[in-house]
Parts: sequence; structure tokens; C-alpha cells
Amino acid sequence: MTSRKGNLMSVRDDVKVLDATVRDGGLCNNFEFTDEFVRELYKTNIKSGVDYMEFGYKASRTLFNEKDYGKWKFCKEEDIRAIVGENVSDMKISVMADVGRCDFRTDFLPKSESVIDMVRVACYVHQIPAAIEMIEYLHDLGYETTCNIMAISQANLNQVEEALAMICESSVDVIYLVDSYGSLYPENASVLAKTFLAAAENSGKQVGFHGHNNQNLAFANTIETMSYGISYLDATAQGMGRGAGNCAMELLLGFLKNPKYNLYSLLIFIEKYMLPLREQGVVWGFDLQYMFTGQLNRHPREAMQFTAEKRKDYCEFYKGLLDNF
Amino acid sequence: MTSRKGNLMSVRDDVKVLDATVRDGGLCNNFEFTDEFVRELYKTNIKSGVDYMEFGYKASRTLFNEKDYGKWKFCKEEDIRAIVGENVSDMKISVMADVGRCDFRTDFLPKSESVIDMVRVACYVHQIPAAIEMIEYLHDLGYETTCNIMAISQANLNQVEEALAMICESSVDVIYLVDSYGSLYPENASVLAKTFLAAAENSGKQVGFHGHNNQNLAFANTIETMSYGISYLDATAQGMGRGAGNCAMELLLGFLKNPKYNLYSLLIFIEKYMLPLREQGVVWGFDLQYMFTGQLNRHPREAMQFTAEKRKDYCEFYKGLLDNF
Repeated sequence: MTSRKGNLMSVRDDVKVLDATVRDGGLCNNFEFTDEFVRELYKTNIKSGVDYMEFGYKASRTLFNEKDYGKWKFCKEEDIRAIVGENVSDMKISVMADVGRCDFRTDFLPKSESVIDMVRVACYVHQIPAAIEMIEYLHDLGYETTCNIMAISQANLNQVEEALAMICESSVDVIYLVDSYGSLYPENASVLAKTFLAAAENSGKQVGFHGHNNQNLAFANTIETMSYGISYLDATAQGMGRGAGNCAMELLLGFLKNPKYNLYSLLIFIEKYMLPLREQGVVWGFDLQYMFTGQLNRHPREAMQFTAEKRKDYCEFYKGLLDNF
Repeated sequence: MTSRKGNLMSVRDDVKVLDATVRDGGLCNNFEFTDEFVRELYKTNIKSGVDYMEFGYKASRTLFNEKDYGKWKFCKEEDIRAIVGENVSDMKISVMADVGRCDFRTDFLPKSESVIDMVRVACYVHQIPAAIEMIEYLHDLGYETTCNIMAISQANLNQVEEALAMICESSVDVIYLVDSYGSLYPENASVLAKTFLAAAENSGKQVGFHGHNNQNLAFANTIETMSYGISYLDATAQGMGRGAGNCAMELLLGFLKNPKYNLYSLLIFIEKYMLPLREQGVVWGFDLQYMFTGQLNRHPREAMQFTAEKRKDYCEFYKGLLDNF
């Protein structure tokens, strides 16, 4: 058993905090954030010591109609620059691109012409070969890259090990363990983390964790997997993210011991920008419907539908989930 | 390092689930539950496979005026019997008595005349001698007893070890680790759990865990400490409890693998009785003000006041907390 890396008082210089509020939170409001929101979040993240801020997706404009979404689904260079200028800060900028849902050969500039620093390639375990193709292309353009292996709780261990072996041979910088369904517990999340770390350490790569809060465990799984050596940690303001949401940034910043992280600036942002979002009716966070899909290790799509319909008949919903299991 | 007891698929026959909704939740509504609520919860707990249901406190009627509280602050024998009759069920009944805030020599019948099965004696670590006096008295009356050592995150390790040595010499059946301030993480909760377990196993006693959700870790800490051998697990419906609340029963029942536990009955109860409580304005659960006191390892009293005043100026509140640290 790999032992813990440091203890609860340690400053871990390898740790990088990534704010995914606009990207994962964008799934709650169709990416329709105001420029003011995104700019203030950008300034807040810098003051908070956040290492990376993710601005959204680089989604295919062939597959998705630009008129149907806010601009952060597409993250055009000029839209990011309208917020950050030349990004004169120590914070790096990332975007996410889904395997099979982006036009990576046409939509990315060479890094030398872009304010984007890192591209996170999201895929399911069976899409690893396609992810590697993207990663090599983006790496050659000059970007830092990550491979975010989604729905890891549904992949079998053989698949995971094969996927890790392949991705560790690539030029990728960071491999993310993504608990898309919020169905991991600290105990098995740690086991997976150790599997990822063992593969990554042999090839000089870092490992990240992206949690979902279906069982109120996003923060717990983040700090538990971190304790074994995971270093790239995703969080969002007030946990804003699809369905039950993510690890809350305020919990994470309050936990980390590195004095560069600062909770106070984030609190001001939450008061001024996050509370109004909720008041406007944007919905996310732990609720029973998401707990069910987390416990059952399933995609939250039915739970999201239940939420959208403002239903409260949890028992009927749960029976229905068991019926079509 | 003590290893885990079983794995995520294990049925642990030593595990006992205790529902503390009326007792800890009573701190949110002045113990003013209707008889219908308590009776339906009692029936629900039986159907859900819950092992113990806690009805409230045995508080001193000398110190506290009966007119100022709902009856579950006092848990008179006739009030419990009005709900449970002779309690013809496999579920046991507990009440809590705080050291220094009860009249244990006058307020407890011999067990043979009471439907109460277990008395949980709550104390701070410096009150262990007084707790032992109560425990021996109640044990002699025929009750199962527990010692719930509160605010464990503020006790120093020497104190804890001395306290454990003393309490392990007593007639107590179960020793509870109580994270009153919700400031433990799975990592240090586990270390404390192992300290408790090491002491308890030498003297044939069980260990319990009672969490608070200030950092959204009540469930995580419960299952993590359980994995190392803690067997008495407190939870409440929808996490209802003081301040940020407790481990949610629905998360716990959905996690446990013993088929005797049944989530469905609880869902019906939540829909019919818990949602209306919230609609009536009873407030509990994770929020930033409780996160602050959890992170700072402090009593939540200022956070409870902030909640009662319906304040939303989190930044000002946080600054104030740091000022008087």
C-alpha cells in the first residue's frame, strides 16, 4: 500500500488547484455567464492563488449551433482575451475538449498565438486511442495537456490498466481520474488513485482528481486521493457543476495549508456573484435524486431531468430507477 | 497501522445504526416535533432496519423549564410509551443525558420498568470522571450505556488517552468519538478512530462515531472510521441536526451492504415529513458559516446566531471570526 504523501499540515508544492466553475458550472446555465461574472471570477481566482482557471469547452461548431449556447461552450480566442487580455498573471488558463465533440484540427491556434495554456482532453476509457491522437496534436502545438478519463467507476480494472499503460506512453502531462457519477467512496477512490499514481510515477506524469457530489463526497474524495499523491485538484465556486455539482472551492481552499491560497477573496465573489445565480433559479448541488444515481453508479441524466421538472416525488423516481436498472 | 475491517462489499454484523433525528434535530426546532412525526419516524426506522432510535434528551427539569421546550428534551417515560407502547420491535430505544445537565439519580426508572434500552452519556473530555459516575449508576439500573466524548477535535491526545484508559475501566458498553465541531477530516478522524479502537478492543467495548457536517464530511468520516472498525454509527433523516447537521441517514443506508437496511421506507418518510419541516422554516445543513467554524475547529455558536439572524454577509462574518480567534 502506497503511504500518504505528507500529512494534514503539509504544504504540498506539487498541488495545483483548477477552478472549473465556468466549464462544469456552465452545464447548469447553458454557459450563459455574463462577462462581468467571468472577469470577476478570473480576478478572484488570481487573488485566491488558484493555479488554473478553466474557461469552458472548445466544442465543435459543426456539431453544436453557436446560437443555442453561451460562448463558453466554444471558448474562442477573442472571447477569452476579452476577459483576460494577455493574462498577465501567474494563473494559467485551460479549456476542455471532448473526444469526438470538437474540431481540434481547426479550432486550436499554435500555443504561441493563444492565451490558453492547457487543453484538457475528456474521454471515456474506450476512447483512449482517440484521446492520444488529440493529445499529441495539441502537445505539438505547444499546449500542456491532460487526459480526463471520465466515468471511471464504470470501467473495469483491466480496461483502466490498459488505458493507463497507453496514455503513459503519450506526451500527456496530467492524467485525471474523473468520478463522473459521484459513486466513488474515499476507500475505493484511494485504491484507484494509487493505480493511477503507480502508472504515472513511472513515466513522470502527474495525476488529477475531478469529483462529483452525488453522495456528498466530492471534497472528501478530493482530499483523500490527494493525500496519496494526486496533485491536480478540480473545484468550483460553491461546488457549481452538473447535477450534484463538484468539490466546493471554498472547502478546498480552506483545507490546503499552502499560504498562497486565500479563502477571503472567494467569499466576496460568492456573496456578490454566486448567491444571485441561485436566486435567479440556476440549480445545482446535492439532492436525493443525485444520491440515487451515485449509489447505483449511473449517469445522472434521469436525475437531471427530475430536477428540471421540479419534481419532489423521490420515492416514485427511485422506484423508476430500479425498474430500468 | 490498523488495517481496514472488511471492504466496501462486506456485511458487518457488528454495525449498529442509530437514528438521532429527534435528539440532534430537536436542537433545530426546540424539540417541537408532533407525535405523528415521531411515531411515523419510529415506524420508518423499524422498517429501515435501524438498530437504535434516540428519542431526545433526559434534561434536568430543575435547570430547564419544561414550558420552554418540546417534550423530547425531557423524554419522560410516559411520552415515549405514548409513541411506542411496549416497543414490540427489534429496534432499541436510546436517550441522551448530558453530564451536569440532567438529574440522573431521580429521572431514570430501573430498566425493568422502562422502554428505554440505552442511555448515552455525553461529556467533554474533562468530565470523564463525572460521566463514569453516571454510567455506573445507569448500568446498575440495567441500561446499556455509552460515553459520548464531545468536541474531540479540541482535546489533546494525552487527554484523550487518559480519558480512554479511565472509561475502558468502567461498565460502559460503547465509547463514541464525537466530532462536535465538524472539523475532522477522514485522515485524522481515522487516526482518532484507531486510538479509540485500540483502547476499546482491549476491554471488550465497541466504538461509535457521531459526525457533524460543517465541512460536508459527516458521511465521509462516518464510513471512513467505520472501515477501521467503528461499529455504532449515528445518522439523522436528511442530516437534520444542530447547525450544519449530521450524517444523512439516506446516505448511510444506501451505503451499507447488509440487506436488513432498507432505504425505501425512509424516502417515504422524507417526502411526507422532512420536506414539510423545511418548508415550515426549520433550518439546518451545510452552509458557509458552519464551514468556517469547522475549518477553525470552533464551537458553531456564532454560526448558529448568523443563521438565526438570516444574515448572508459571509465575508463580514468570517472577518469577525478571525478577529476574536
